[in-house]
Amino acid sequence: MMERSTTSLTVERVDLERQSAQADVVATEEPMEIRVVWPDGGVMATESVAVTMRTPGDDFELAVGFLCSEGIVRERGHVLDVSYCPDPHDVQQFNIVNVTLSPDAGFDRAMLNRNFYATSSCGVCGKASLEALRLMGADSLPSDNLLLSGDVVRSLPDALRAAQPVFARTGGLHASGLFDADGSLITVREDVGRHNALDKVVGHHLMADDLPLRDRVLVVSGRASWELMQKALTAGIPAVVAVGAPSSLAVELARDFGMTLIGFARSDGFNIYADAGRIVSASEHHA
Amino acid sequence: MMERSTTSLTVERVDLERQSAQADVVATEEPMEIRVVWPDGGVMATESVAVTMRTPGDDFELAVGFLCSEGIVRERGHVLDVSYCPDPHDVQQFNIVNVTLSPDAGFDRAMLNRNFYATSSCGVCGKASLEALRLMGADSLPSDNLLLSGDVVRSLPDALRAAQPVFARTGGLHASGLFDADGSLITVREDVGRHNALDKVVGHHLMADDLPLRDRVLVVSGRASWELMQKALTAGIPAVVAVGAPSSLAVELARDFGMTLIGFARSDGFNIYADAGRIVSASEHHA
Repeated sequence: MMERSTTSLTVERVDLERQSAQADVVATEEPMEIRVVWPDGGVMATESVAVTMRTPGDDFELAVGFLCSEGIVRERGHVLDVSYCPDPHDVQQFNIVNVTLSPDAGFDRAMLNRNFYATSSCGVCGKASLEALRLMGADSLPSDNLLLSGDVVRSLPDALRAAQPVFARTGGLHASGLFDADGSLITVREDVGRHNALDKVVGHHLMADDLPLRDRVLVVSGRASWELMQKALTAGIPAVVAVGAPSSLAVELARDFGMTLIGFARSDGFNIYADAGRIVSASEHHA
Repeated sequence: MMERSTTSLTVERVDLERQSAQADVVATEEPMEIRVVWPDGGVMATESVAVTMRTPGDDFELAVGFLCSEGIVRERGHVLDVSYCPDPHDVQQFNIVNVTLSPDAGFDRAMLNRNFYATSSCGVCGKASLEALRLMGADSLPSDNLLLSGDVVRSLPDALRAAQPVFARTGGLHASGLFDADGSLITVREDVGRHNALDKVVGHHLMADDLPLRDRVLVVSGRASWELMQKALTAGIPAVVAVGAPSSLAVELARDFGMTLIGFARSDGFNIYADAGRIVSASEHHA
């Protein structure tokens, strides 16, 4: 399971003394589509229920558990079979799971409209998701609008925390902060949902008519996921600094679209997962 | 903004020495529906785009930012107006936001099917969301299948961490662990998505045909949100222990459905947000 659930890559580790390339491991993030197959008046019908960004592993349990939470599967007998869908492409991606329901489950398409939730993407693998972003009009970001020094990057996590009310600093809310290249705060927003906090920042600047945010850096209080990177890209933000860990697909997206992605940012160091030439003099005494 | 974004309540604080009722503040979580209004062949049409669980505050920015990330709004000129929808009920809930698009936005219903994502619920306020759960068949959980001692609760966060591979302990993955009343681990699953980790646990036990999980306690590595509590309730799990903070709606759900909810669980103490009579001898020297 560990082979699929983690992704190995090389990262630039920066601390106060030096910068060096190191082997690193991040959590794999890949879309998985959940489909139900059920007897619909004598024939078997298939419907896509959700696409969720997940860490591969225990995929069948994820599919069944999701359907359970949705009220579609309520007991063991409702599930006749769980299997990976034969992939239409050459290579089986193990990213589409078919759950065949028994007639007892009493499945009805109307159940979907009422309860639907999931993170949806156009593709059923990371590459397809990246491709779908390009089809939606997303383009690589130019690297010449923003340069970040290591000193500024190290200052950002504390600057974000200082900009949050005391309550939020205690861990109850996610924060998204937009900073300029000197590390000065432009905008901060908070929410229980990390993606909501970022949507609020982007919405504010769209209404102020200053998108794309080409010379800004986004700082997030938690982890960097596909969803956050996609939203930053759409808003034209070229650099994302996360206090937590990035996912594999976040790193891929950053590298594909010329974005800078920094993880585990602390006052004494950080990891560069994607650079795109925007990080200058990362450590005071560059090795 | 702080008034709507936080919720005050009373919590039982338990440490090694004593237990006492304390005033506490949690992040408010409420559903918000985002609707687009656009010119559709001479008439103005309205379509619900998403319902997201969010912290109230900056709602208009959230709506516009969400539509920006979805590619529906791409520049300032695409937004003619943003307003709360007049509520059909007696009291304005400020939970439905209408974004009126200009013809330039070129909005088409087909854009929704391609990109839809959000956490959807049936209601547009917390109370409606709780009511919708009841309509889906969710019932209050009985309190006599599980009793937890304070010692066991204090042991759970370390037990969950010990059950994760070294990699996951470094912060790259969320974990959901199911334990028995003695604090013994039954099942642990991990994912970049906290809800996915729980779905995997529930899916495992549904396939083993041992739902509802009436005598188990769920331990989660992060915060307790509406979504997690709803999934635990559906699986019949009566107690949830979170290492992080709970949201307001998580607390409401727990209290409404007779669930036990503990937040900020550490080896030296924890907060009880909802009890339902399942916590016994919470501290060694009960005050």
